Amino acid sequence: MNDYSYLLVGGDTRQKHLYKSLLNKNIKVDSIFLFDENNLSEDLEKISNANVIILPIPSTADGTTLFAPLIESKIELAAIIERISKNTILFIGGDNNIFITSKAKKVINVLSDEVMTLKNAMATAEATLAIIIDNTEHTIFGSNILITGYGRIGKILTDYLIALKANVTVCARSKIARTSAELSGANTIGFDRLKDSLNKYKIIINTVPMLIFKQEELKNIKSDTLIIDLASKPGGIDFNAAKYMGLKTIHALSLPGKYSPQTAAEFIENAINNTLI
Amino acid sequence: MNDYSYLLVGGDTRQKHLYKSLLNKNIKVDSIFLFDENNLSEDLEKISNANVIILPIPSTADGTTLFAPLIESKIELAAIIERISKNTILFIGGDNNIFITSKAKKVINVLSDEVMTLKNAMATAEATLAIIIDNTEHTIFGSNILITGYGRIGKILTDYLIALKANVTVCARSKIARTSAELSGANTIGFDRLKDSLNKYKIIINTVPMLIFKQEELKNIKSDTLIIDLASKPGGIDFNAAKYMGLKTIHALSLPGKYSPQTAAEFIENAINNTLI
Amino acid sequence: MNDYSYLLVGGDTRQKHLYKSLLNKNIKVDSIFLFDENNLSEDLEKISNANVIILPIPSTADGTTLFAPLIESKIELAAIIERISKNTILFIGGDNNIFITSKAKKVINVLSDEVMTLKNAMATAEATLAIIIDNTEHTIFGSNILITGYGRIGKILTDYLIALKANVTVCARSKIARTSAELSGANTIGFDRLKDSLNKYKIIINTVPMLIFKQEELKNIKSDTLIIDLASKPGGIDFNAAKYMGLKTIHALSLPGKYSPQTAAEFIENAINNTLI
Amino acid sequence: MNDYSYLLVGGDTRQKHLYKSLLNKNIKVDSIFLFDENNLSEDLEKISNANVIILPIPSTADGTTLFAPLIESKIELAAIIERISKNTILFIGGDNNIFITSKAKKVINVLSDEVMTLKNAMATAEATLAIIIDNTEHTIFGSNILITGYGRIGKILTDYLIALKANVTVCARSKIARTSAELSGANTIGFDRLKDSLNKYKIIINTVPMLIFKQEELKNIKSDTLIIDLASKPGGIDFNAAKYMGLKTIHALSLPGKYSPQTAAEFIENAINNTLI
Repeated sequence: MNDYSYLLVGGDTRQKHLYKSLLNKNIKVDSIFLFDENNLSEDLEKISNANVIILPIPSTADGTTLFAPLIESKIELAAIIERISKNTILFIGGDNNIFITSKAKKVINVLSDEVMTLKNAMATAEATLAIIIDNTEHTIFGSNILITGYGRIGKILTDYLIALKANVTVCARSKIARTSAELSGANTIGFDRLKDSLNKYKIIINTVPMLIFKQEELKNIKSDTLIIDLASKPGGIDFNAAKYMGLKTIHALSLPGKYSPQTAAEFIENAINNTLI
Repeated sequence: MNDYSYLLVGGDTRQKHLYKSLLNKNIKVDSIFLFDENNLSEDLEKISNANVIILPIPSTADGTTLFAPLIESKIELAAIIERISKNTILFIGGDNNIFITSKAKKVINVLSDEVMTLKNAMATAEATLAIIIDNTEHTIFGSNILITGYGRIGKILTDYLIALKANVTVCARSKIARTSAELSGANTIGFDRLKDSLNKYKIIINTVPMLIFKQEELKNIKSDTLIIDLASKPGGIDFNAAKYMGLKTIHALSLPGKYSPQTAAEFIENAINNTLI
Repeated sequence: MNDYSYLLVGGDTRQKHLYKSLLNKNIKVDSIFLFDENNLSEDLEKISNANVIILPIPSTADGTTLFAPLIESKIELAAIIERISKNTILFIGGDNNIFITSKAKKVINVLSDEVMTLKNAMATAEATLAIIIDNTEHTIFGSNILITGYGRIGKILTDYLIALKANVTVCARSKIARTSAELSGANTIGFDRLKDSLNKYKIIINTVPMLIFKQEELKNIKSDTLIIDLASKPGGIDFNAAKYMGLKTIHALSLPGKYSPQTAAEFIENAINNTLI
Repeated sequence: MNDYSYLLVGGDTRQKHLYKSLLNKNIKVDSIFLFDENNLSEDLEKISNANVIILPIPSTADGTTLFAPLIESKIELAAIIERISKNTILFIGGDNNIFITSKAKKVINVLSDEVMTLKNAMATAEATLAIIIDNTEHTIFGSNILITGYGRIGKILTDYLIALKANVTVCARSKIARTSAELSGANTIGFDRLKDSLNKYKIIINTVPMLIFKQEELKNIKSDTLIIDLASKPGGIDFNAAKYMGLKTIHALSLPGKYSPQTAAEFIENAINNTLI
């Protein structure tokens, strides 16, 4: 509960859930470029009067216009930024430089909140389960599954897949990470042994934001293996080569926003509250 | 490995996986009414010569024609049954009386294999996770979930959902079942307390093949709750009433066949092998 | 809460916890032959006046005297039984025939309460973890462990050991039991393959109340293997042969009473309440 | 497999297991001051000829004499150090400055191996389960348990206790740690709310190497609560005050060496091998 008046600008289903949640708490909140489009200049005018402006995650997809997939128009970020007053606290999603020019009292990148990142890792792991179940013809139970990388997402995903009785192998560079995976009940290999083990897995999940699966690796993968890449663009797979070889790949991005927008909105709200308090 | 010659008759993707698996083991196997349609009388002729005939699960959806969703024609079961020779072992899926008239040496209902039923419960539980994740806007993590019934499916589903850190409540009639659920980490209630607790859950999963969720119960359920019915037709929910009240229901049937046909085919193959050996 | 006046007769720490718990609920409760010894005839007199008499689990260890390990004297069961009035509800632990002669309105064997049996299985599984950890020089993590039998205790113990990342093999007669164990993440074998696998395990836990480990089996077990028998006397192991061969065996009996008497007392209290209500 | 000749000097059961394991691999290995005592000067002479000298964990308990609990005599560290030749690789356990003066080619503190530390955390968590089960009269199942600190040991212990269906609360300073505990299924509190929550727990486990439980905190703890301190000396509890108040405390130290010396020896052997290779 606080006295701020919030303005939500653009965004997807998460932003809608955030709007609803703030409303339910009797917080003063308005939105523009989210559900529908009214008079552009009237909408833009609201910007100057808001204490707290919340841009979506990501705030922009192309670097110049607002991320606003639920409306038709393209809104220039510049038009928004120039109207932000010096009393405003501005929340953005991503580390785009364009916001440096704003007069806002404070610019906070929600995505740098570590608690949110950790919770998003859980939501991502959960969504990955659905992607696997929806895109294979066999059960997770009893399947040989490889996970490359053992960061936040790799860890939780390993726990979840082992709980569903998969036979999980974690490939990680550091010995500490491999030991930690081993203590979770996974088999472990280093990247030196990756290539030769690739024909063993029914499912391969990459979490490393580096090109791990090049032609050389891909040609060792069986044709009925499902390859899921959770690493942000460009990802860890040579998708062209994979396509050419007939391998089934899924580049699964922004899963919390797609699979659990309501929960993702709660994470954002918490991250914002932690800053404002 | 054995000397039988198998004929697969009709069926869905599971039957295709079964065909491929038998082929890979160098077992003599043929199929009719599965992938494509040839000359009807030639196809029917193959029936008299097969040692082992495997009808699909279910063998019939309407009681009179073969379950053969991958081809266009309707094939009369009678036409199949009359051609089965007295040396044939006939596997069927379901307990339809129509097969009593066959001359087969032995008629075995694959669905009465308890091992398969148990494994199918696991595959069903796994598929249910995907249905939940795909059809809600929040994570399983932290959600209040109700499961009515604590048979094979209820048990495994409870374990899986608790592994994903849901807050699970099991509603079961017997004290033993409730104690067993409690030892798995679930909350438990009897059916006498069901109605009054219904407004607490974000997800409700029914596994009881009886009308549990009547108008009276449905009106206590919040509008944003997802209701999944895993009980075979007609299921445990008054679907009309639910629709009228604007509740979101999913009658999720035959999940192993839909979500993991390859694994389901292995279960069938094992059940068949256990009988033939 | 009820109007009965309880008399606790004999017993071990569990009975003491039960006494304390009833007292805390302002229930009329007295005890004899439990903590200390007073005038014998005065104590015996209390029997005729009690509504509810609770004998311990077991009620007798030798068939003729009361199980009363916390006092010095031996009390004849006959002396107790003859004083029980016809208005008394008598709770006993075990199915000893001697109680048939009592005039009690009702004789209830607490041990036949299935809910309690199931909860005791959990307490037994938990205590077994401590026995393993206390009696081996290695961790449960990563150990090959065999469990013979897959009843209530076998099931929960399997789950617990897998949670601690042991490599568990379940040996069970029925295919259904083995499938159930497999779905819990265990390896499984039938008894036909037991003997040849015995040299693989660091820990062997028997739950089957039949002589499973005879000389023939024992000679295949490595000398540094710990063998725990959870089956009630005479147990499933030829203990003499095992001793002669230098194998380390532990016949672990009545674990809930020894390792968690307070929780065991709650189970007894619940079982009693369920009957009295 | 390598060409080194090893000398194990002093130590406890772990060192004995290490000795046996090296022997089984046909590695040249000798020991002094471990099992028994021979001629002191002959023993000391062996030091100058060894390629690899392995002092125990800890190498010294008092700062001046060797940790050698399995023999009677006190051996001065100085006498050992002065005989170490300049071709020797010296493994020590702990970061005692006294070894700086040695001529050894290399001095390696085994305890600084992070992989070993992580595996020891697992062995510590496992042993803690036994300590709890052995020292309470109730089951872990269903118990309210507090863990202060969420480092390596706190994390694994939380997972283990939740697998045994305890109701775990983690008290940690950092939000990230609390979020991580929450994702594991624990309740979480900050240290500001610690004092007021203390009367809720049946078991309290401290892992923080700072004085957390002072008089003020201790007086809020119920008399039947078990308090286990896993933090190295002096620990996180005012033990005198606790004793005075009649609270049951256990300062549980060096658990891997006590409860799983064989596994602990494997960890040490791996740590040594990783260095020598």
